[in-house]
Amino acid sequence: MHAPNRATLWGRILADELAAGGLEAVCIAPGSRSTPLTVAFAEHAEIDVYSHLDERSAAYFALGRSRRTGEPTALVCTSGTAAANFHPAVLEANQARVPMLVLTADRPPELRDSGANQTVDQVKLYGDAVRWHAELPEPEADERKVRSLRTTAARALSETVGVEPGPVHLNCPFKKPLEPLEVPDAVPDAFADTLAGRGREGAFVETTRGDRTLEDDHAAEIADTLTDADRPLIVAGPADPVALQTLEADSVVDLAERLGAPILADPLSGLRFGPHVSADDAPVFGGYDTYIVHVDEPDVVLRIGASPTSKPLRHALRDADVRQFVVDPAGAWREATFTATDLVAATPQSVLSGVLEVLESDSTTDMAWLEQFETAERRHWELADEARADGALEADPFEGAIIADVLECAPDPATIFVSNSMPIRDADRFGQPRAADLTVLANRGASGIDGIESTALGAGSATAADEPLVLVTGDLAFYHDANGLLAVDRCDVDATIVLLDNDGGGIFHKLPIAQFEPPFTDQFKTPHGIDFESLSAAYGLEFERVAPVEFEDAYRRSLERDGTQVLSVSFDSERSHRRREDLGERTRDAIR
Amino acid sequence: MHAPNRATLWGRILADELAAGGLEAVCIAPGSRSTPLTVAFAEHAEIDVYSHLDERSAAYFALGRSRRTGEPTALVCTSGTAAANFHPAVLEANQARVPMLVLTADRPPELRDSGANQTVDQVKLYGDAVRWHAELPEPEADERKVRSLRTTAARALSETVGVEPGPVHLNCPFKKPLEPLEVPDAVPDAFADTLAGRGREGAFVETTRGDRTLEDDHAAEIADTLTDADRPLIVAGPADPVALQTLEADSVVDLAERLGAPILADPLSGLRFGPHVSADDAPVFGGYDTYIVHVDEPDVVLRIGASPTSKPLRHALRDADVRQFVVDPAGAWREATFTATDLVAATPQSVLSGVLEVLESDSTTDMAWLEQFETAERRHWELADEARADGALEADPFEGAIIADVLECAPDPATIFVSNSMPIRDADRFGQPRAADLTVLANRGASGIDGIESTALGAGSATAADEPLVLVTGDLAFYHDANGLLAVDRCDVDATIVLLDNDGGGIFHKLPIAQFEPPFTDQFKTPHGIDFESLSAAYGLEFERVAPVEFEDAYRRSLERDGTQVLSVSFDSERSHRRREDLGERTRDAIR
Repeated sequence: MHAPNRATLWGRILADELAAGGLEAVCIAPGSRSTPLTVAFAEHAEIDVYSHLDERSAAYFALGRSRRTGEPTALVCTSGTAAANFHPAVLEANQARVPMLVLTADRPPELRDSGANQTVDQVKLYGDAVRWHAELPEPEADERKVRSLRTTAARALSETVGVEPGPVHLNCPFKKPLEPLEVPDAVPDAFADTLAGRGREGAFVETTRGDRTLEDDHAAEIADTLTDADRPLIVAGPADPVALQTLEADSVVDLAERLGAPILADPLSGLRFGPHVSADDAPVFGGYDTYIVHVDEPDVVLRIGASPTSKPLRHALRDADVRQFVVDPAGAWREATFTATDLVAATPQSVLSGVLEVLESDSTTDMAWLEQFETAERRHWELADEARADGALEADPFEGAIIADVLECAPDPATIFVSNSMPIRDADRFGQPRAADLTVLANRGASGIDGIESTALGAGSATAADEPLVLVTGDLAFYHDANGLLAVDRCDVDATIVLLDNDGGGIFHKLPIAQFEPPFTDQFKTPHGIDFESLSAAYGLEFERVAPVEFEDAYRRSLERDGTQVLSVSFDSERSHRRREDLGERTRDAIR
Repeated sequence: MHAPNRATLWGRILADELAAGGLEAVCIAPGSRSTPLTVAFAEHAEIDVYSHLDERSAAYFALGRSRRTGEPTALVCTSGTAAANFHPAVLEANQARVPMLVLTADRPPELRDSGANQTVDQVKLYGDAVRWHAELPEPEADERKVRSLRTTAARALSETVGVEPGPVHLNCPFKKPLEPLEVPDAVPDAFADTLAGRGREGAFVETTRGDRTLEDDHAAEIADTLTDADRPLIVAGPADPVALQTLEADSVVDLAERLGAPILADPLSGLRFGPHVSADDAPVFGGYDTYIVHVDEPDVVLRIGASPTSKPLRHALRDADVRQFVVDPAGAWREATFTATDLVAATPQSVLSGVLEVLESDSTTDMAWLEQFETAERRHWELADEARADGALEADPFEGAIIADVLECAPDPATIFVSNSMPIRDADRFGQPRAADLTVLANRGASGIDGIESTALGAGSATAADEPLVLVTGDLAFYHDANGLLAVDRCDVDATIVLLDNDGGGIFHKLPIAQFEPPFTDQFKTPHGIDFESLSAAYGLEFERVAPVEFEDAYRRSLERDGTQVLSVSFDSERSHRRREDLGERTRDAIR
């Protein structure tokens, strides 16, 4: 590697090794101190660069991309507060196990804590939220340092997709010159001929990762327990993006069918939607949020993925004092109701394969068990459909009807990103299982309403050209990351953005604070009166106001058009909330 | 204190004690977990509540308010990523010594690292960037716990304005119910009669703070050194907001006059503008950024405040191998050129008073020393005025001319907030000292371009009704914190916002990277084409496009009008940059 100076050498080697290790994309926010990294990534043929002007949005964009692909995306920023703007997305990546490589440029060590400009303490800036933190040595054409740099690049990438995937932070001090200016003797010509200087064919270190798989006798014990049960239940919570890459939906269905077990499939599990769901056969259920309280208790539970979105389901699991296997490849005890009896630290696919292999006979499950779910599920969707019918919806509009449309009418394939707060809860309750390849995503690690547009657009940046991106968001989240809308143009992502506008925090109507006025309206509901049409226009987006009954048509039109449209559907949050509660009540009554 | 449950008790006692300790304002972002805090602050008669929907903007608003007042402002958010959104402003508060009390609501301890929703590790979330971090105990009507709560409130406030003022973080775990719902026996009636329960008249702990002052013989040594010098120089860098409250500008002028020393007054020093600056007498200089390279070296330097904004001045100080006293009340070695010979750990005012008291005779300073500055200063402003004249400005527009107008035509008094990147550098070079009470502020701790609107509006929230607020910002910063504009309406702050729009990062033209194309335009200059008129309209702001020569009139009109106007002045960044360089060159030539 020839380079005109040390900083340039550092940037180029890092970019080269990361590319050799498989890195495909980087999100960069402009800045001076990060120049060696920015220049190196920009000139690298194999790495796509996405330029962002707000570091918070940049980080969520990277998060969204990695969430969609299961592969790490890198992030670059300058020194100072810029790095702290990455923090929210780093927390989400930590909780949701999204691979991400954060490269923060820094001043050289002697300037720290010296009062120098734009210099803050960036060492361990993200605390325990990263899988690995390292401070790069200062650039120098030194054999050991450069070998360490090449090795560090391989290691950093590898840690993002380790046993527990997540963010990794490399703090990168640079001194001037930061640009590729020639500095005589800074990088001797002969250095390019050393092993450190020239590197190896391909990556300096090739990484091979083994998966955690079960031994046969452990698989056999789980298989026996499941086979012996009368009312076995499979619960699939939100999937980790890396684990999802190797999860075969057919294995889950196969096991469920052989056990006679229903699969309660979270909308984020990767199992509620997909070719494995056929209309009559596969025991994939999605309406349980309404009816789980009215079916019998399971006598054994196999859980994969994170804690389910549905609170009634979480409570039902908490109240079932039965054997519960929680499968978690990282063995991280992600089970906040403290009801699990068995932690199985292995990949979900290895558990499924292992159990299927040793399953001797099909289960003796009571058929009435599965029928309870089938009956309840059928009734749930019938009543939801009735409430969504034009006349009913006109009389009693509710936000869940829009989310039902979004999922039901989405093309096959499509990527659908759902905001936190009410949209994900409505997607959970009103998103009917479909035999279509829908990738439904949400930031369900820390469940913030920040970074929503950026995460969605980042996911969209990674899909094939013929796979549309749909974002469903409330108005507070839309406002919170409005800066992220700039990526539509700068990163060339097309989307249909469904804005459920109830002028404030509709979710608070669900909580007891709604009884306390003041401060309910001023401090919780927080009506704000933001003009979202103007806000969309600032970023060149088309904006259309749509009545709930007109939504389906407008949505289909948008999906067929190029460019990004914001479809704004207004709701009175209190009325929508009451309709949602009432519908749940009526469904439960019908099922009881 | 009676309370219907433990969480409510906790919130009320905290709010009460903080108010008793002098807290006047809190910025709250809506959320559920923080309900006990939000309700308590909202119902408290003596604390002003500012409601914000984006935590990042909320934190910068609080920062701006505290920066203007020198008093702590509190911050409240819910659990999860919300707290990380405070991080950028916490870093700025740390570096710039701005008092700030961060209250983050949290889940109870048993839910941490359990996979529970919206739960992240908030313990020591801001690392070493806070003066004190404490985890509150879980709410309970227990004598010792409640005494500790009351004491913690006093201590937390006190730490924000301690020897080194800055942010303090209290992490506050709460379990349900979070709302003021009655829970039988949770808070026994009798508890209200205990000392812990009823508190004391006023604060539970009254805090009295001593200042660091010099002993007489130390003051005498400094006085002797200054008196003996032929070319003494006083450099006033950006002031700490708390220290500024007790700094008497007249003392600085008095000392300078008696020593025959020029005062090089940073625009953020609190000394460039004010009644102490009279047209002919006071040796307050502001144009040194252009001419410091052409005056003689000082033979002793007295420095107060942080490192100056002007890079030529910093370099001149670095190159002067003479005795340099750096006065810093926190004794924190804020001097990044490593040229200081003496650290004086005492308040600037105590040093000034101490030295003035023991100063026996006036200095024997060579009068030619002060005259060099007077001549150069005069020439600097003459040439700047010529460049700002209508004809010249029309032919060769440059951004500095607008900032000169902003400061020259600002009413007396006024608060003027200046963004980082180019605006603060232009304010430094083109802001002529004036005998008007202008409070000029910037985020010069970490010097980020984030949070600019919010910091400005926070500062504006603390000024008297007849004191206008002006914000000068570039387009990237305006975009970065556009969410902060919501505070104009929600927090009822009027401002004149001067938007210097050069469609991207104009500052990069100053750097060598401008020679490298690509990636200069795509990755550094980053033209974005954001429609700022629409963006302003989203928040109900008036927007006016103004040519540079029409700016002064438009500015005066806006200052006289109610409501917030955005005055957008467009520049070609490369041309503006060249004009600025050329003007600097010509000024230096004229002075040499």
